[in-house]
Amino acid sequence: MEIKDFKSEKWMTDYERQAVYNLTDTSTDSWTFEELIALDPTALKNLPLDYGWITGDPTLRKEILSLYQNQDEDTLTLCCGASQGNELVMALLLKPNDHVISFSPGYQQFWEFPKWFHATSTEVPLKKDDWSIDFEAFQKAIRPETKLVLLANPHNPTGTWLDQGALEKLVSICKDKGIWILCDEVYRDPNGKDPSLSDLYEKGISTGSLSKQYGLAGLRTGWIKGPASIIQSINTFRDYAMISTGPLTERLGVIALQHRDVLSQRAQEVMKKNKAIVAQWLKNNPYFSCTIPSRGPVGFLKLPEGLSSTQFALDLLEKTGIFFVPGSCFGLDGYVRLAFGKSHTNLLKTLTTLNTFMETYSPETTSND
Amino acid sequence: MEIKDFKSEKWMTDYERQAVYNLTDTSTDSWTFEELIALDPTALKNLPLDYGWITGDPTLRKEILSLYQNQDEDTLTLCCGASQGNELVMALLLKPNDHVISFSPGYQQFWEFPKWFHATSTEVPLKKDDWSIDFEAFQKAIRPETKLVLLANPHNPTGTWLDQGALEKLVSICKDKGIWILCDEVYRDPNGKDPSLSDLYEKGISTGSLSKQYGLAGLRTGWIKGPASIIQSINTFRDYAMISTGPLTERLGVIALQHRDVLSQRAQEVMKKNKAIVAQWLKNNPYFSCTIPSRGPVGFLKLPEGLSSTQFALDLLEKTGIFFVPGSCFGLDGYVRLAFGKSHTNLLKTLTTLNTFMETYSPETTSND
Repeated sequence: MEIKDFKSEKWMTDYERQAVYNLTDTSTDSWTFEELIALDPTALKNLPLDYGWITGDPTLRKEILSLYQNQDEDTLTLCCGASQGNELVMALLLKPNDHVISFSPGYQQFWEFPKWFHATSTEVPLKKDDWSIDFEAFQKAIRPETKLVLLANPHNPTGTWLDQGALEKLVSICKDKGIWILCDEVYRDPNGKDPSLSDLYEKGISTGSLSKQYGLAGLRTGWIKGPASIIQSINTFRDYAMISTGPLTERLGVIALQHRDVLSQRAQEVMKKNKAIVAQWLKNNPYFSCTIPSRGPVGFLKLPEGLSSTQFALDLLEKTGIFFVPGSCFGLDGYVRLAFGKSHTNLLKTLTTLNTFMETYSPETTSND
Repeated sequence: MEIKDFKSEKWMTDYERQAVYNLTDTSTDSWTFEELIALDPTALKNLPLDYGWITGDPTLRKEILSLYQNQDEDTLTLCCGASQGNELVMALLLKPNDHVISFSPGYQQFWEFPKWFHATSTEVPLKKDDWSIDFEAFQKAIRPETKLVLLANPHNPTGTWLDQGALEKLVSICKDKGIWILCDEVYRDPNGKDPSLSDLYEKGISTGSLSKQYGLAGLRTGWIKGPASIIQSINTFRDYAMISTGPLTERLGVIALQHRDVLSQRAQEVMKKNKAIVAQWLKNNPYFSCTIPSRGPVGFLKLPEGLSSTQFALDLLEKTGIFFVPGSCFGLDGYVRLAFGKSHTNLLKTLTTLNTFMETYSPETTSND
């Protein structure tokens, strides 16, 4: 089976380490190992590095469950980041000729990876004014063989947040047709106050991780929250495909969740500051515009009309060291992904460089890519 | 897609924590986090817990490559244990109606998991006298659609080690027919002195990990070593299915491999001692027999004729606290997996308990399962 490059991941693998100013990384500031262990210095005492609990450390499981209304033990399993969570859900649910629906722009995993399981895919365009779901277009995309809807909330790359009302509207449409929903919630409020799709729908599965809002991508701690029947099947699959996630990162995950107020406060302060600076920069900006997201570290910056996002991102990186993932990696040209989660020495100055760059920028290629 | 329980993993998940005397765990004694970090106390200094290098820490990659003759950078990628390595290789190679061959008794992943990819499977019985490959039966099992042969070397659960000659014989048969070979080498000599299948065949892929011989299953550090074209495709799949393995366990993996002489010496001493004790116990033993493996921590203990291995293992655990995985989990009844890698307070006494147990044992069920 051939699979296309995961464009955004490949872009980051290829170019990220050339970046001087990375304005596109979707994590919040990473914690170092020493900072994290300082929150509970004896957490790793006498810890044997064996397989640990096959379905995950009970304390970690309890902490993760506390982020949800339904705290039934059987509704949770652990995995290597939410991306493996999404993989496992698709591997379990999708059969040849099933149909899936995702949204565009979006996270390429949602439309490309289902093809691995011989499923077909439709990407429904989001409304361009506020990146909300076009429910009329969504309903038209549903087919008798539609098995699964895939989305992220908050959304990557636009940062749109679907509130409980919007989620319930989506659920009510899917419920009528018996369609599963997989909601990637890696950008969800780290204190678990915002609604989770898995709590709203008996065929709703949510994935989460410590990577983004907690600044701990390096632990690769992810999870899947969903109906017990699906979780049980995934646990069988896990026996073949990973065995366990290991006690070391699980113990550190416990520290993170038991100190989630500390971790989230640090991240929230950075995001709030960055969003204010970007909002200030965008006022009367002759080149760029963006809907500043109410939640999470991700937004989608609109480029001047007619620019190829790929060419723009490459030229900008070469000339200024400013690094973006282009919209073309998310299925929509004319934008770049702008992230708010990282501390910068002087963000306003870097943003001003963008305008200076535009003043003299004349790309050789201006066609869409 | 339905998938059957992974019997040996499920058995361990279900019963392992009831064990008083675990004589079946295939890892060597686990290192604790503190023991490992003591070998290089500054290794985690200033380590941000971000995604790290997407295709793995370059120092770790270099250390792993040093275990092979072909040390080309493009022939290696990292994963979550060798079991995920095996998963990724199968996901990449297997298409519907492909045929695979594995050996029986064996590791259930090799015949059950290919069915996930709509492939069919033949399990060729190993010779019962020395658990070597019956090459005549193997050749007869090959079909035009045979795509992949799967094995472990040293073998799980019998502990058989295929030397370079046996591997070359297997390769020569497969080469004629263009058949890939996946060799799980988690039990390979931790100093990389024994041959790796990946070094002997252009369609040979080896998987490895720090789980067994290094006593570091908790790091979940695994890898795939194979032709660059396959590794490149697996890296694309990894972007969808895991992103990275994370810098924390990678740095600790570097410590392990840079101190592999220390780790392997400790493990070898335990195995040598245990094998001598088991050999002594088996002399003139009226109930049990076993080929003591020349390498690695795994062997297959023959039970008295007519016993159900499942029933025996359950009854033994209940009465004595001695824990085995039954042969039925590996596709061959009448045996249990006996492991040599763990330190025991008084192994001979525990083994003697087995004989005492047998003296009065009359199972209710004696049929094969």
